[in-house]
Amino acid sequence: MYIRDILDSSSGGEGGGTTSSGDAAASNTSTNKRLDGHQLLVLTDAARFPELQPGSAWRRRVAQAHPGLKIVVHDQDTWRDRTFPQDLDWAHTTLLLTGAVFPSPDVAPRLEYIQLQSAGADPINQTPIFKETDVAVCTTNGVHGPQIAEWVIGTFLALNHQLPYFLDLQRQGKWHQGWPYKDGMQDGVKQRVGILGYGSIGRQVARIAKALAMDVVAYTNHPRPTPESRRDTGYIVPGTGDPDGEFPAEWYSGTDDADIDAFLGSGLDWLVIAVPLTESTRGLISEARLKLLSSVKDSQTPLGQAVVKPFVTNIARGPILDTDALMKALDAGWIRGAAVDVTDPEPLPEGHPLWAKKNLIITPHISAMSNSLGHRIADVLELNLQRFSEGKKLVNQVSRKEGY
Amino acid sequence: MYIRDILDSSSGGEGGGTTSSGDAAASNTSTNKRLDGHQLLVLTDAARFPELQPGSAWRRRVAQAHPGLKIVVHDQDTWRDRTFPQDLDWAHTTLLLTGAVFPSPDVAPRLEYIQLQSAGADPINQTPIFKETDVAVCTTNGVHGPQIAEWVIGTFLALNHQLPYFLDLQRQGKWHQGWPYKDGMQDGVKQRVGILGYGSIGRQVARIAKALAMDVVAYTNHPRPTPESRRDTGYIVPGTGDPDGEFPAEWYSGTDDADIDAFLGSGLDWLVIAVPLTESTRGLISEARLKLLSSVKDSQTPLGQAVVKPFVTNIARGPILDTDALMKALDAGWIRGAAVDVTDPEPLPEGHPLWAKKNLIITPHISAMSNSLGHRIADVLELNLQRFSEGKKLVNQVSRKEGY
Repeated sequence: MYIRDILDSSSGGEGGGTTSSGDAAASNTSTNKRLDGHQLLVLTDAARFPELQPGSAWRRRVAQAHPGLKIVVHDQDTWRDRTFPQDLDWAHTTLLLTGAVFPSPDVAPRLEYIQLQSAGADPINQTPIFKETDVAVCTTNGVHGPQIAEWVIGTFLALNHQLPYFLDLQRQGKWHQGWPYKDGMQDGVKQRVGILGYGSIGRQVARIAKALAMDVVAYTNHPRPTPESRRDTGYIVPGTGDPDGEFPAEWYSGTDDADIDAFLGSGLDWLVIAVPLTESTRGLISEARLKLLSSVKDSQTPLGQAVVKPFVTNIARGPILDTDALMKALDAGWIRGAAVDVTDPEPLPEGHPLWAKKNLIITPHISAMSNSLGHRIADVLELNLQRFSEGKKLVNQVSRKEGY
Repeated sequence: MYIRDILDSSSGGEGGGTTSSGDAAASNTSTNKRLDGHQLLVLTDAARFPELQPGSAWRRRVAQAHPGLKIVVHDQDTWRDRTFPQDLDWAHTTLLLTGAVFPSPDVAPRLEYIQLQSAGADPINQTPIFKETDVAVCTTNGVHGPQIAEWVIGTFLALNHQLPYFLDLQRQGKWHQGWPYKDGMQDGVKQRVGILGYGSIGRQVARIAKALAMDVVAYTNHPRPTPESRRDTGYIVPGTGDPDGEFPAEWYSGTDDADIDAFLGSGLDWLVIAVPLTESTRGLISEARLKLLSSVKDSQTPLGQAVVKPFVTNIARGPILDTDALMKALDAGWIRGAAVDVTDPEPLPEGHPLWAKKNLIITPHISAMSNSLGHRIADVLELNLQRFSEGKKLVNQVSRKEGY
């Protein structure tokens, strides 16, 4: 299976709170719980969404909740095949689940709600149906949180417990209890993790880190001074995340150099990069900043205890963490290790020196993958059908003003 | 660094509740908060316990809490060097921290409390000081919970997210987003983990599993029908574990075949083995039981969803999980993968076929290792000095009746 096509440019995004408020409202302002007169077109490949096919538990639940809704399924992987399927009953389609293929406004005049399969709005935001209408458009922001957070925690634990070294021993068939790492085995208890970008991924990392008895510190672009402002207003996979923003012991914010430095200089044992790539985050984690991160730990070493340097994780976008700086920090021992699912350049070419660095895990931008992805997208759709039928604000609705 | 010497035979143990009750009471029945007249002999290697050396924060805290206490530090790694250090002031020693060297009753007539460094009582339980006196003996049960639980979660996430495969790609310097595993990437949300043995390790696994949005099912030897019976009464690393037994959705118990089968047949996605090795747990997870575990998942497959077989983790003792059965289960696909820190035979010899099995992680009995181990043992000692000085029941006190 190849997955580049279902990854998108905002899986590292900060906030779930993309629901529009000042925008042109969707037309779902009246209650029609049965969804009488509505037709949902499911424009996806059937293999990826078995949940949406006739006979499934999802279909039974939706039919029971909305007996007036007609569901039409068209099997097309719109990420690979962008042909517009003209022969479908667009004229009566009011609701649409799609990946990367969209009708023009005149073809689907009754369309009221488009549920994207992607966490970002980039597949649609240059199309006429987005730019020229006020059809409600919703992302699936939040569906990647659990699996990317698992990747973040899993690679952190793997390196802290020297798993790559032991996998090498296993390959050689050798049982040997010593290990060559002077830093030994580091567990997470009382360590301080700084999460740069407290969106759906960062919030689930925080939940797991708290269970590991770590202290959590959050950085957000905008200040979050009130309980209300700390809430996650986007889609949340049930049982995950930090809906009320209760896990961080401290919140940092601000985009000035001094603001970022205050966060990075707060004595972090682990930095998790989970902000979107923008012009202000490009190159944000520079050589000077990795040195700052490292030097704080030096000064905090208690009596007799080994210096354990910070760890760095990047699951956002490669260019946020300067590649040369990362290599220098690993070589010089400024950081004890790193795990990156994204690189710069990406794909990382064969022969690039980053491949060979020690105490580093590189994976090829796969952290968002999960067998449960289709299920979660169906869950967002089900939730929004419910909200639509009750005339409520949809979850993850894209703001036409902000474009996300 | 080699660690065989500080591992012990009960790191997989089930209950923290080893505090004696019906036993001969320790002599610490009166209050002496200053610990006037008491002398603590610290019989350990200094390198492993920097916290206990003069000038440390630990020493300052203890001196402040117990100004009458004299502390004598003798630098000896008693695991490697079992020579009895005769020249020490045993006559005035009332409290002792030691690993594997113990005084005879006549040499230390005033001894009242021995704090072991190990989680099990096996280093002491055949010695005269244990068999012929009522000196209070305490283990460090609980100090391994966090790091072993991290190993359990880390290896589970590593295999679910195909990390060994991606580490191979990294070694080859190849960026490739496909993967050969038909089961794809499995995240933990809504998966059901069954924890066989709900002690300090199992409880911390449960805490993290809950944060991963998993459902937790516990198995204990004895029934735990009341809130009181579900508590962990042993030492708990602050912020970890399940002190009140609140995480399991269901509790199973009983040692009959039918009891074990009911637990294993309850639809588990993941079995974590964390019971001590006894005659009744030897060979407990047999071929028939792995098949039972697997067949339940077959029958529960919902429409159109891929069959994802259970995962098995063993951090207890090798002989509890039958090695031939494990190999058969991996080869036949009864389980989707396994992670074992212990094997049978152990050490696993070079050339043993288990080394080469797919979807399996083997590590050489190192999951208990942590840089924080010395700190945690010092924490148990500090806690018990406090309790001793107040005439309270010590934590982790070994029952002479039960021998643990």
